[in-house]
Amino acid sequence: MENFVIQISCPDQRGIVAAVTGIMADNGINILDLTQHTASDVDVFMLKSVFEVPDNFNRRNFEEAFEPTALKFRMNWKIFSTERKERIAVLVSQTNHCLWELLLKHQDGELNCDIPVVISNHLINEPVARQFGIPFYQADYSQGKDEAEARIRKILQEYKIDLVVMARFMQILSPDFTDAWHNRIINIHHGFLPAFQGAKPYHQAWYKGVKIIGATAHFATSELDRGPIIAQEVINVSDRSSIKQLMRMGKDVERRTLVHALALYLDHSIFVHENRTFILR
Amino acid sequence: MENFVIQISCPDQRGIVAAVTGIMADNGINILDLTQHTASDVDVFMLKSVFEVPDNFNRRNFEEAFEPTALKFRMNWKIFSTERKERIAVLVSQTNHCLWELLLKHQDGELNCDIPVVISNHLINEPVARQFGIPFYQADYSQGKDEAEARIRKILQEYKIDLVVMARFMQILSPDFTDAWHNRIINIHHGFLPAFQGAKPYHQAWYKGVKIIGATAHFATSELDRGPIIAQEVINVSDRSSIKQLMRMGKDVERRTLVHALALYLDHSIFVHENRTFILR
Amino acid sequence: MENFVIQISCPDQRGIVAAVTGIMADNGINILDLTQHTASDVDVFMLKSVFEVPDNFNRRNFEEAFEPTALKFRMNWKIFSTERKERIAVLVSQTNHCLWELLLKHQDGELNCDIPVVISNHLINEPVARQFGIPFYQADYSQGKDEAEARIRKILQEYKIDLVVMARFMQILSPDFTDAWHNRIINIHHGFLPAFQGAKPYHQAWYKGVKIIGATAHFATSELDRGPIIAQEVINVSDRSSIKQLMRMGKDVERRTLVHALALYLDHSIFVHENRTFILR
Amino acid sequence: MENFVIQISCPDQRGIVAAVTGIMADNGINILDLTQHTASDVDVFMLKSVFEVPDNFNRRNFEEAFEPTALKFRMNWKIFSTERKERIAVLVSQTNHCLWELLLKHQDGELNCDIPVVISNHLINEPVARQFGIPFYQADYSQGKDEAEARIRKILQEYKIDLVVMARFMQILSPDFTDAWHNRIINIHHGFLPAFQGAKPYHQAWYKGVKIIGATAHFATSELDRGPIIAQEVINVSDRSSIKQLMRMGKDVERRTLVHALALYLDHSIFVHENRTFILR
Repeated sequence: MENFVIQISCPDQRGIVAAVTGIMADNGINILDLTQHTASDVDVFMLKSVFEVPDNFNRRNFEEAFEPTALKFRMNWKIFSTERKERIAVLVSQTNHCLWELLLKHQDGELNCDIPVVISNHLINEPVARQFGIPFYQADYSQGKDEAEARIRKILQEYKIDLVVMARFMQILSPDFTDAWHNRIINIHHGFLPAFQGAKPYHQAWYKGVKIIGATAHFATSELDRGPIIAQEVINVSDRSSIKQLMRMGKDVERRTLVHALALYLDHSIFVHENRTFILR
Repeated sequence: MENFVIQISCPDQRGIVAAVTGIMADNGINILDLTQHTASDVDVFMLKSVFEVPDNFNRRNFEEAFEPTALKFRMNWKIFSTERKERIAVLVSQTNHCLWELLLKHQDGELNCDIPVVISNHLINEPVARQFGIPFYQADYSQGKDEAEARIRKILQEYKIDLVVMARFMQILSPDFTDAWHNRIINIHHGFLPAFQGAKPYHQAWYKGVKIIGATAHFATSELDRGPIIAQEVINVSDRSSIKQLMRMGKDVERRTLVHALALYLDHSIFVHENRTFILR
Repeated sequence: MENFVIQISCPDQRGIVAAVTGIMADNGINILDLTQHTASDVDVFMLKSVFEVPDNFNRRNFEEAFEPTALKFRMNWKIFSTERKERIAVLVSQTNHCLWELLLKHQDGELNCDIPVVISNHLINEPVARQFGIPFYQADYSQGKDEAEARIRKILQEYKIDLVVMARFMQILSPDFTDAWHNRIINIHHGFLPAFQGAKPYHQAWYKGVKIIGATAHFATSELDRGPIIAQEVINVSDRSSIKQLMRMGKDVERRTLVHALALYLDHSIFVHENRTFILR
Repeated sequence: MENFVIQISCPDQRGIVAAVTGIMADNGINILDLTQHTASDVDVFMLKSVFEVPDNFNRRNFEEAFEPTALKFRMNWKIFSTERKERIAVLVSQTNHCLWELLLKHQDGELNCDIPVVISNHLINEPVARQFGIPFYQADYSQGKDEAEARIRKILQEYKIDLVVMARFMQILSPDFTDAWHNRIINIHHGFLPAFQGAKPYHQAWYKGVKIIGATAHFATSELDRGPIIAQEVINVSDRSSIKQLMRMGKDVERRTLVHALALYLDHSIFVHENRTFILR
């Protein structure tokens, strides 16, 4: 059954929830789930609601009816149909535990999206994509970064991609790229940000002797490893672990965190305000 | 500043949120935080909202205006003022880590309640209560359980108690008592319910070789250790731990879980439906 | 490089470690890692050590030299070569997230074993096994349980299997079977044992309103869901989760816990004493 | 009963465990618990063992017998009696949840040490110390930092202090001080190091939108918040939490982490190598 999700954020004011849900009731909408939070430290109102609609529901009419209220409260708002699947492109290099995780979870029906294409700077993961019947393309960085990025962007366009997921893609995207895909590229960093930015986070962690390691899924921006954090997970590590063991243990955390972040995106649970996210479930 | 909290539960129907928030808007109310969830497995609608009111707000008028809507949707509902402090009585036996935790957290301003009395079947914790300036009474079970319970219930009445917290109180309350205080007695069980009901849960856990131990805060009912679960927390334990070490480690989990459950109660986040709770934050 | 692991358990006495490591030193052995623990609640001494050996090391001679000491202290003991890979058979029904996890982790080099065969009561997972080049057999329970088990046991024998892993195998093995494979069958139970034994543990958990769900890997015995627990993992769940969502979230915990238990087995970290394990790492 | 603990670290070589445990056996020692680990990434051998001794045991003789072996393997080593209580001074400013935690845990017999003195830059916590019968001194920083530190160091000397615990002491100790007390000052930092060094870590965390907050206990060195990490703990935080709520939730993590680190110190489980610790339990 087609349901809808509405996401609203705006400066905090009196009467927003009543105004919103009043219009919804006037249009025969039944709210299934609603979360509203005002981040008073930065004075931002946020609302997410899942709702079902009557048989004669006309989305365009509803959006027109909603528009004056949205203007009045200066809302950023958007309505999503649960039937409209986001189209995801996966970027991957050689390490493929995150790629496998995405494709298996998708196959299991746990990710409400389409994955029409996999792109890599290497050829090694072509068989993995093929086995799930997904077209695979190489963007060969050895021929130059600009060319490789141009190729990737062309493929994204051809496949009408909505969101890019970097599943351990070991190339740094240019600012042009990340700006064009603002808040539409999810990256998995194999460290607990904001600590351990940059290369070899497990080596950094081991030499610091930290007792907990983690992974961070975030939107990629032009500043490496500094985009808004979407999800983080951690595990306790014993000091009897070698660097190699940290890397191995970390892989489980990475794939779990990446899929979790993607699921939050697909649920429309992510709000972004001034380089941080608010997750409302 | 005085804010209010409304708690609503009822069978699921269309238009409840709009009806509720419409009346709120009509009365000049500003919603600060709202969580709505429908447990579709049992068809129960639940809503919790924190709101602020205009200067001329009259609570009684609002409640009267709300009543027809409540009747229409067959709501269980209640409004709480953040200025009205619940009055808590603490029952304790000899082990006092939970008592200390409650009194220190309360002193630190982290528990929005009054603790006007501490009651025990022993005298040993009288100095602890006294040091916080709280009257202490003994209910001497060696003189008979009926007399002891009668004394406790009399004290609860005298001190106009709203909620009883059993902070490692090692006597089993009679069904008469638990029925009279239905969903108003929070107990801490030092095991991960529903496993390890009854006595010596850490011994049970050790001999089973479980790898994780926990504590459970629940409403006390006439069925021992089977009332609705409010909060649970766990820790991983090494198999190199002795029973004694489990007991020691468990104490931290117990006090944390009990205080957490009490905070949920004081936030009006607990909904009870057919012997289970739903926590809505 | 071939290293060795020694596992010893016996009643606690003075001088065991010195006796053991003395013989090791006499044979030119270099200890890489050693953990010794005495469970004083049941008076059991346990020792696990990983060691490297000189070029001229003769395992048989060493074992002969060790035997008198073992007899003196009434030891259960065994030496394992890190080069000798345990041979694992996977039993699976229709749900295959645990099967995928095992095969991918194995392919990634994270499980030091061979997986020469997959057996199922259904045909649906044949393609999964085949894709990893692993022979697949059906044991058709619709033809009778005795016949199906006989077929399984014959296959285990043919493939010289050391350990059986039940990766969500939804048939109950007979006592004959579990006795014959005592402490050599690892099962994953999709609930937090000892609570939630038997069928539909996520339904049980939801209706109890528990705040944490978990999975348990244990040795299968003739008593359903009561064998020694090897590993347990948990996740916090929101009360806004449906039963279906619990089941989905639980799948991640299940596969993680099962692989973790298998890795402990392959590391020779599991000691069993009177229906509980001690994990020594 | 008096037991002993031995801590050994040295470059990795063959035969160390055998040599050590051989001497122990020759002296009638019974090993209760032994953990040995070689950190092969930095080639360091570490061993911790708890042992009981015969009635006629002479510690000095044993140490003399051990010395040649220690020299041969270039060991850092030390023997501790479980009867010799470390003498701890607590430094605290105004926030006192860590102070309370230390004193209550100590009173409960969970910390095997003496706490003969509490020192603060303020007077506000004098009643807390007094209630446990512990002398309290003020080191008034408003009179100058040098004078205040001189006073503290004098008190530490008078009370024959072994270890300083900074329980939310909000002054930065001078390099002279930290050098003089190298690896003998435990500080609690209210953030997850190495992220969030410096002031206001919860504000930093909130504005970064991290999903997990933590606390870090570490040895204080002349480089602020960069000394060897002893213990870390974390909690997941909801994005519906305000900065104030993060601070409140963080307090529980802080006190738990600090006491945990102190317990590790008192158990002689901490090894330090090149600015990181290895915890061997």
